[in-house]
Amino acid sequence: MSNLHSDLEAETALAGQWFDHLRTHSRGRLGVTRASYGDGEQMAHDLMQAIGRTLGLEQRIDAAGNLYLTLPGRDRGLPAIMTGSHLDSVPEGGNYDGAAGVVAGMAMLARWRRAGRQPLHDITVMGVRAEELSWFPAPYIGSRAAFGLLEPEALDSCMRPDSGRTLAQHMAERGFQPERIRAREKQLDPARIACFLELHIEQGPVLVRKGLPVGIVTGIRGNLRYRDCHIAGRYGHAGAEPREARQDAVLAGVEFVGRLEQLWLAHEAAGKDLVATVGQFHTDTAVHTMTKIPGEVWFSMDIRSEDNDVLRAIDRELRTIAAEIGARRGVTIDLGACTNALPGPIDRDHRARLERLACELGIAAMPMASGAGHDSAVFGTQGVPTAMIFVRNEHGSHNPDEAMDLADFAQGLRLLVAAVEEIDEA
Amino acid sequence: MSNLHSDLEAETALAGQWFDHLRTHSRGRLGVTRASYGDGEQMAHDLMQAIGRTLGLEQRIDAAGNLYLTLPGRDRGLPAIMTGSHLDSVPEGGNYDGAAGVVAGMAMLARWRRAGRQPLHDITVMGVRAEELSWFPAPYIGSRAAFGLLEPEALDSCMRPDSGRTLAQHMAERGFQPERIRAREKQLDPARIACFLELHIEQGPVLVRKGLPVGIVTGIRGNLRYRDCHIAGRYGHAGAEPREARQDAVLAGVEFVGRLEQLWLAHEAAGKDLVATVGQFHTDTAVHTMTKIPGEVWFSMDIRSEDNDVLRAIDRELRTIAAEIGARRGVTIDLGACTNALPGPIDRDHRARLERLACELGIAAMPMASGAGHDSAVFGTQGVPTAMIFVRNEHGSHNPDEAMDLADFAQGLRLLVAAVEEIDEA
Repeated sequence: MSNLHSDLEAETALAGQWFDHLRTHSRGRLGVTRASYGDGEQMAHDLMQAIGRTLGLEQRIDAAGNLYLTLPGRDRGLPAIMTGSHLDSVPEGGNYDGAAGVVAGMAMLARWRRAGRQPLHDITVMGVRAEELSWFPAPYIGSRAAFGLLEPEALDSCMRPDSGRTLAQHMAERGFQPERIRAREKQLDPARIACFLELHIEQGPVLVRKGLPVGIVTGIRGNLRYRDCHIAGRYGHAGAEPREARQDAVLAGVEFVGRLEQLWLAHEAAGKDLVATVGQFHTDTAVHTMTKIPGEVWFSMDIRSEDNDVLRAIDRELRTIAAEIGARRGVTIDLGACTNALPGPIDRDHRARLERLACELGIAAMPMASGAGHDSAVFGTQGVPTAMIFVRNEHGSHNPDEAMDLADFAQGLRLLVAAVEEIDEA
Repeated sequence: MSNLHSDLEAETALAGQWFDHLRTHSRGRLGVTRASYGDGEQMAHDLMQAIGRTLGLEQRIDAAGNLYLTLPGRDRGLPAIMTGSHLDSVPEGGNYDGAAGVVAGMAMLARWRRAGRQPLHDITVMGVRAEELSWFPAPYIGSRAAFGLLEPEALDSCMRPDSGRTLAQHMAERGFQPERIRAREKQLDPARIACFLELHIEQGPVLVRKGLPVGIVTGIRGNLRYRDCHIAGRYGHAGAEPREARQDAVLAGVEFVGRLEQLWLAHEAAGKDLVATVGQFHTDTAVHTMTKIPGEVWFSMDIRSEDNDVLRAIDRELRTIAAEIGARRGVTIDLGACTNALPGPIDRDHRARLERLACELGIAAMPMASGAGHDSAVFGTQGVPTAMIFVRNEHGSHNPDEAMDLADFAQGLRLLVAAVEEIDEA
């Protein structure tokens, strides 16, 4: 019976049509724009609902506007197998970031319908609201709201920059119930979910460079984020101050960032997953000049690992280094506020199943960390066994040039269909 | 007869009054402002001319507006002993940067007059125009014009930011002859100058920290200046790009600046004079974010040494390092245009005389490099035997808090008077 995955040509063609529809109806100046709780996102939800009606699926929309389309199982008392992703996009972004996961889920259900088969478990495709940070500055709004995890303050403090209206206002305008989200009412019960499998484009260049269509995620990196590191030294005359009298903020910052890179290399050599980025580093553009010893520097750090113990160790090491360099160079290195997002756990068994199935089905795939965050991280931290399939895409994501080949998508879809069928029968 | 230096109380008191006059008549919002070819500078020239008339000195004003006040010598065929400095200031700067050297010269001539003595050589105090770079972006305008060295283009291309008018216009408005400067007509003949001794406040903190009133300059540092260094890497996703795929402009820049500091330490350990400053270092503030691998960095370098061979070696080493880091990290490090201002040679004999006299007169002094440029550098490169006396000042220069103690000035004046008397009699 396990053969749904062997004939997906019709569903792949359908998926291509759905992607075209999404693109056509959310095309912006350069790319596609589907704002969280905006018209583009709603258009995508409307399309999925229409497909759901065609396929005769059960439909539910929760208080935050998340969409659930369910193919009922033979034993409705069993927990549901879930898949899906988000349907919003960044401004002028690509067509596949998020949408690929929902389209894959719908294509899978279409395949079950075409086969005339009914699964044992409910199989639910979730269209998640508001995953992208560009619109409201709070992570995973839709999936966290579904689990009653969204901080009530976020409903009023998060303002969409293009509209100037709050998250609560935008939810209400679309007919949803922000007051139930504010009350942290759970829209989803983790105990009623057998697993969550998310298909998503890879947002980095790894699969392109390795020449592979599919990645199997080993972990969703958590992060340490320092938005406002500051070094206070002392401005001085570039020619007249001897070296030992200087309190040069740039030289201190340069040494600090160099030490961060050394830490990175050391953890990598010890086999730990880690990436580190100093995306911002700047002297005071209003005050700095070539002939003045720089008295101040600002910088940011974004440090990610699948292993939060690594992140905690890095944080301790950085604070020691900051104090040591500061004392030696006569400057103050203040790392400022730091946030720690926990890594999203990937279920070992589901990951192993995906790796085995890829092997058996001849799908060229590699294990890899997810550097970006995903709704899966929320499901994983809620105790739902979670796994992710990455599909190769060119030019990264969050830009109009994001490009996924439908043939690569078909490979990811095949793996998803095979895995869900096997899980359902296990 | 060599005793003019032993009784300078009256002239020190006079100098104090002249400083007060200068401050009172050029006081700005915070400090003093004597713009090049502006009212403040002219007021200072007027004061010196008035003192010159009182002392019965010969007066000459050259085509660039530089002022020469001369106590005629017994043998007018001999080259003149010259001293002096500039009379402009930075906007909202201090009262002593520049003016101290002219006031010291005038106090010295007052002492000769009070003694009723006539030197063998002419002794000339020069009030130099337009030394500060704040007003017109060309170095040493007055002293270079005096030697026919000012590039004619500078007359029309240099615009004073507060007036929007050119250097030539400002010269003409004060009644000077920019066309003669444009023709590179020499206003001063190096062969007719026995030496140039400049007294100037130290612009750094060395004398304050050492607790010494006087410094004797060993050399005026030349510089290498790189105004627009640029690193081109590639922007990328902070979480999803593996280390080896990154082309991180900040990490490349951080390594480059760290290597510059290592070069500095190595040359210092080898006994070479060197200071280096990266006053500007910044990612693109319009594009950078915490979660993006930085694709571009801009920075400046200001590197100074008394020894131009050291500067040339540093330039070669930096270019090698830039190419090596660039190749290894997949970025392009472009050092951009580089200017090399030659060090200002200090005459060995005159410097030795100053050191010996300081010892003999009990003036606590130390040898030190001049990190900032001075008009003396122009005299030195023209082959005029040149030396400089530094006077301690608090809080650096080019700011309203610049502070020189009159007792320290008196020590510098004593050394100047003793040196000139000895040179005149030698």
